Amino acid sequence: MQHNIKKIALLTGGGDCPGLNATIRAITKSAILNYGYEVIGYKFGYRGLYNNDFMPLTLETVSDLLPKGGTILYSSNKDNLFDYSVEENGKVVKKDVSDIAIENMKKEHVDALVVIGGDGTLTSARDFARKGVNVIGVPKTIDNDLGSTDTTFGFNTATEIATEALDRLTTTAQSHHRIMILEVMGRNAGFIALESGIAGSADIILLPEMPYDIKKIIDKINQRKREGNLFTIIVVAEGAKEKDGNIVVSKIVSDSPDPIRLGGIGNKLAADIEKIIKDQEVRCTVLGHLQRGGNTCTFDRILSTRYGVAAVELINEGKFGNMVALKGTKITYSSLEDVIGNNKVVDKEGELVNVAKKIGVCFAD
Amino acid sequence: MQHNIKKIALLTGGGDCPGLNATIRAITKSAILNYGYEVIGYKFGYRGLYNNDFMPLTLETVSDLLPKGGTILYSSNKDNLFDYSVEENGKVVKKDVSDIAIENMKKEHVDALVVIGGDGTLTSARDFARKGVNVIGVPKTIDNDLGSTDTTFGFNTATEIATEALDRLTTTAQSHHRIMILEVMGRNAGFIALESGIAGSADIILLPEMPYDIKKIIDKINQRKREGNLFTIIVVAEGAKEKDGNIVVSKIVSDSPDPIRLGGIGNKLAADIEKIIKDQEVRCTVLGHLQRGGNTCTFDRILSTRYGVAAVELINEGKFGNMVALKGTKITYSSLEDVIGNNKVVDKEGELVNVAKKIGVCFAD
Amino acid sequence: MQHNIKKIALLTGGGDCPGLNATIRAITKSAILNYGYEVIGYKFGYRGLYNNDFMPLTLETVSDLLPKGGTILYSSNKDNLFDYSVEENGKVVKKDVSDIAIENMKKEHVDALVVIGGDGTLTSARDFARKGVNVIGVPKTIDNDLGSTDTTFGFNTATEIATEALDRLTTTAQSHHRIMILEVMGRNAGFIALESGIAGSADIILLPEMPYDIKKIIDKINQRKREGNLFTIIVVAEGAKEKDGNIVVSKIVSDSPDPIRLGGIGNKLAADIEKIIKDQEVRCTVLGHLQRGGNTCTFDRILSTRYGVAAVELINEGKFGNMVALKGTKITYSSLEDVIGNNKVVDKEGELVNVAKKIGVCFAD
Amino acid sequence: MQHNIKKIALLTGGGDCPGLNATIRAITKSAILNYGYEVIGYKFGYRGLYNNDFMPLTLETVSDLLPKGGTILYSSNKDNLFDYSVEENGKVVKKDVSDIAIENMKKEHVDALVVIGGDGTLTSARDFARKGVNVIGVPKTIDNDLGSTDTTFGFNTATEIATEALDRLTTTAQSHHRIMILEVMGRNAGFIALESGIAGSADIILLPEMPYDIKKIIDKINQRKREGNLFTIIVVAEGAKEKDGNIVVSKIVSDSPDPIRLGGIGNKLAADIEKIIKDQEVRCTVLGHLQRGGNTCTFDRILSTRYGVAAVELINEGKFGNMVALKGTKITYSSLEDVIGNNKVVDKEGELVNVAKKIGVCFAD
Repeated sequence: MQHNIKKIALLTGGGDCPGLNATIRAITKSAILNYGYEVIGYKFGYRGLYNNDFMPLTLETVSDLLPKGGTILYSSNKDNLFDYSVEENGKVVKKDVSDIAIENMKKEHVDALVVIGGDGTLTSARDFARKGVNVIGVPKTIDNDLGSTDTTFGFNTATEIATEALDRLTTTAQSHHRIMILEVMGRNAGFIALESGIAGSADIILLPEMPYDIKKIIDKINQRKREGNLFTIIVVAEGAKEKDGNIVVSKIVSDSPDPIRLGGIGNKLAADIEKIIKDQEVRCTVLGHLQRGGNTCTFDRILSTRYGVAAVELINEGKFGNMVALKGTKITYSSLEDVIGNNKVVDKEGELVNVAKKIGVCFAD
Repeated sequence: MQHNIKKIALLTGGGDCPGLNATIRAITKSAILNYGYEVIGYKFGYRGLYNNDFMPLTLETVSDLLPKGGTILYSSNKDNLFDYSVEENGKVVKKDVSDIAIENMKKEHVDALVVIGGDGTLTSARDFARKGVNVIGVPKTIDNDLGSTDTTFGFNTATEIATEALDRLTTTAQSHHRIMILEVMGRNAGFIALESGIAGSADIILLPEMPYDIKKIIDKINQRKREGNLFTIIVVAEGAKEKDGNIVVSKIVSDSPDPIRLGGIGNKLAADIEKIIKDQEVRCTVLGHLQRGGNTCTFDRILSTRYGVAAVELINEGKFGNMVALKGTKITYSSLEDVIGNNKVVDKEGELVNVAKKIGVCFAD
Repeated sequence: MQHNIKKIALLTGGGDCPGLNATIRAITKSAILNYGYEVIGYKFGYRGLYNNDFMPLTLETVSDLLPKGGTILYSSNKDNLFDYSVEENGKVVKKDVSDIAIENMKKEHVDALVVIGGDGTLTSARDFARKGVNVIGVPKTIDNDLGSTDTTFGFNTATEIATEALDRLTTTAQSHHRIMILEVMGRNAGFIALESGIAGSADIILLPEMPYDIKKIIDKINQRKREGNLFTIIVVAEGAKEKDGNIVVSKIVSDSPDPIRLGGIGNKLAADIEKIIKDQEVRCTVLGHLQRGGNTCTFDRILSTRYGVAAVELINEGKFGNMVALKGTKITYSSLEDVIGNNKVVDKEGELVNVAKKIGVCFAD
Repeated sequence: MQHNIKKIALLTGGGDCPGLNATIRAITKSAILNYGYEVIGYKFGYRGLYNNDFMPLTLETVSDLLPKGGTILYSSNKDNLFDYSVEENGKVVKKDVSDIAIENMKKEHVDALVVIGGDGTLTSARDFARKGVNVIGVPKTIDNDLGSTDTTFGFNTATEIATEALDRLTTTAQSHHRIMILEVMGRNAGFIALESGIAGSADIILLPEMPYDIKKIIDKINQRKREGNLFTIIVVAEGAKEKDGNIVVSKIVSDSPDPIRLGGIGNKLAADIEKIIKDQEVRCTVLGHLQRGGNTCTFDRILSTRYGVAAVELINEGKFGNMVALKGTKITYSSLEDVIGNNKVVDKEGELVNVAKKIGVCFAD
């Protein structure tokens, strides 16, 4: 069946991250050079599929694209064509418009679709596969929380940026005897906080998976002082939270226009610690979007390239409905049916948490 | 008179910045290698001078110190020995304790004092000079707002970090068609915002010196959209503000524990723009302490070394009461009497602002 | 048996690489914090063991050590205590001095020895284990050619540096329509060349494992020209070589003081290509020692920390005679008996070579 | 007269360096946005002017161009249209073809020409100015050896790269007690060696301007050993040379295909030192083309932008025959007549050399 593939399409969905462009490049090059496929890219993820808004992808389009962050196909968050907001008679209603997307692909003679995205984007990919579309998934999540693959591109670049930020904060912390807090990404999974915390020599790491006890944080700071370390470095995942039942010293500002943005966990924690520790200043830095942009790190360039090539191989072999994945040192694939909902979090009893504890890191849980 | 110099002391005051350690190294090496001075460093700025808390500085102490951010002498903000908080009879009162500091220096046979700091720290240096202490000042300010010198170390490192941050935000802005705001340091002087804005290809630069009109920001964003640029990069100095008389669309959150930290100008601006521009997302990143730490850039390593060597030369020549300075390509010096209060801001009609305007940057003033 | 461990020693052998200091730190911290071991470090690898030249390792010694390249214990190449050069009666003779080393350890009450090094260093570790010494090995090789572990620290940092170098050479190659050659490390195994070549978008990758045919290199350059790409990027491992039987166009300079240094494969190749391609300039850059120093990359900091912690666990469990290793995502260990001589090279038919070929890379084999 | 300017052309000549693209962008943006000029770029420097080979430069062409090294207009070395190699009757002869170039510009209605280049390129610019062409020069030289401007772009990027290389070599030097030599650019002027040497903490700096005495190098190495510093860092400009009359211990290999490439001063020096110092290894790294490519540093991005805007201002004011320049903190201009032949070298008695000496650097002169 795969022998009939002549034209493939790709799209990128969800938040951007380093490695998307490298993947687009690898798919395009591999598809053209090895199998002579025609390649197009839908713009803005599924929205472009619905609007039939696409661009041709040629060897020239993808030249110089390898190191660049972002996605030349643009991306959009939360566009689900199976439950899509459309205007009808002046009202916005939610509709399943997936058939329009399928129609668009037929019109353009697209024989296979490569979907690059995270959990939400891949759920739609699975749903298109169920409707008979020749879909291949490529996993993308900065948080590294997809259960079916060991690593996704973007994660290593983000971890490097967070580590470099910790390096920078440390010199100021030491000079001013401060408590410096760095808030990094990770709503449900704390991999970035855990790995950058180890690599950036954090004293305290706070993860969504391990709700913290503020008293244990204070104890660690005081213990460090007794040992002559008059500064403390804390890395906190944006999804970290206090243990239930603990006295919440201060609340996240809730009447601001955007409480999450203005008063995330990092700033809350800073306010809480300052109320208890009187002789050390506390400062919080929210790394935010600096984690997702710029140059793609070496590891992610290679992983993206491997994923892109593997996706084209699956197309050539007719193995649709699958997502490429990394297991150990090997590129493999899983059924999209198994991938969805199979999310990964940091193992509290796992080796990495244990390594951190052994060198003295406090998780305050 | 200078021929009697046998021992010198240094201290670093105010916020830390890259180049302090390089300056400490250059002073120590130059003093020991060329003049055989003994060198000590007071800890925590003037606080160490009051507490007679110091450490010896030797060739070994300063080895490997050149590239490191921070200060091995530690620093403290706002410690003014001429108006110092001391406990007396269980109460905290403000007193002039400068004579105790002078007494401490005499006890240690310190013949000259090198003070490395910004406006506040140097004001005390001048006051000690007025009381007969052999003082040399070395300028330090990340904001580059000292009028008596063209550049201070720390500024170039901060500008590089801000530029790199803009590079990173740009790939995400392009991928998601977003408006990305970066808030950088600069309470009264917008040099970091101006230079990083030019180097990082910002579309809009907002400075304390040029109060902005939100309508002009909106106009620029809309003009860019008409021209096909569906993203906009804004760099805003922390001290930027709206023009008087303009309708302030949203207020800075004021009932949070720390309004400056939680609701600075960048986040306010994001909230304001989001209320007007409906079809583009707005995101704000506050660079904060990432600007002051980590590795010292090449330019700042060299400038710090030149300052440190020049400070020792002034000591050897007995030219006390002066601050070393850079004018054009030359190291020179100014009287501390002339330096204080002589602050510098961005010239609205100056060449750099003009250059930015010529390449299309909007200042919204 | 392990319950009697009170004092451990470490040493680093062979060429330095990023991650050694991170490993020393992790072992020291983990040993002291979890098991109360006393820790010392022999200087200059085995030479220090022979001379009983060591330093105590404390929490303070290893503070700030995580990101730094190099080794605070110093290293030496090729010191084999089982065949060691000693002076006797004015003559240098080779002797087995391993008993002296064992005696020294006994004198210092060293209960276990952690040896961090590559193939040569670990061979001696095995030999000490055979003589009853409680030895744990930690693998170190920039070339990543140890067969018993998936990855060694240093390799990723080197690959990142090589990739960045390729990024730099590319802009010049494009501007001047040049053929740019980068020679990287890899005497017997071409992993650095392969991975940096993929990450740095090399057009031609030459590996020790795949002897090259100069005619295929010329063909690739000419094919690129026909396609409008008037520049070519070549990455060559230092151990790459021409196929037997091919006409060697030019010889490596052999009468220079150091033929390997002055006339390595990269420069030879440049000279050969220039003799055939007349209308494009050829330039070679030898990356050399830039690959082994400076800051340790995030990946290597984490891997080193994991290795260090795992080494202490093996000591605590009394599992001597083993080397820690990474298999997939897991830390494990192998017997030193199995490790030695089990070297790894790039698999010519493996996935990574295949990925490179699929995106158009030429191996000229 | 300038009011008649409607179309301008630019070209880049000589070796590429970071900042060329930033300059092209600034000229194009400023010319279009402020004066409505049409802009074209000749390809490959003067060769494109002779062949009438050009591309239009629009706002879109120069978008995203600011940080990129290299030149999108390509460059060529040594193409002098006043003495150009052309084929006539099957023979290559040297001819003055400048009139053809002028004719080409007339045909395309080019009213003014901006020439971006170093000494050679600007000499031709002057010669075209003498023939009545409306020429503006923009200085470009990595070596920073143009006498009419304080700094040229490219120089700071190169110095940063050389400094980072020294940082890297230092960790290996310390670990192995080696003598590490870094050869950097600078044929006649040693600014890169001097500034990176100060910033990278070199112990010995060798400049073309200060011929060295090998005995003084040996003395410095031995003095460092006596002081407990068992490693030495040397940075040497490619144009450095031994003092006349000294015994040249080894010769630069002269029978190799490319003696300069294979046997530069750095490798020669390594061989010489190794013959005298027996107990320390010596290693040389030639930085080469790594100094000219990749990302443009912040300082150079700003300087290039200022130069580009200033060039367009000169065109608008009709001030032809001039080169833009930086003097202190100000952008200014000089007549091309004065610029040519006015080269700059390091001042042996100047402040920077003195600063280096004061902190213990040896120049071995």
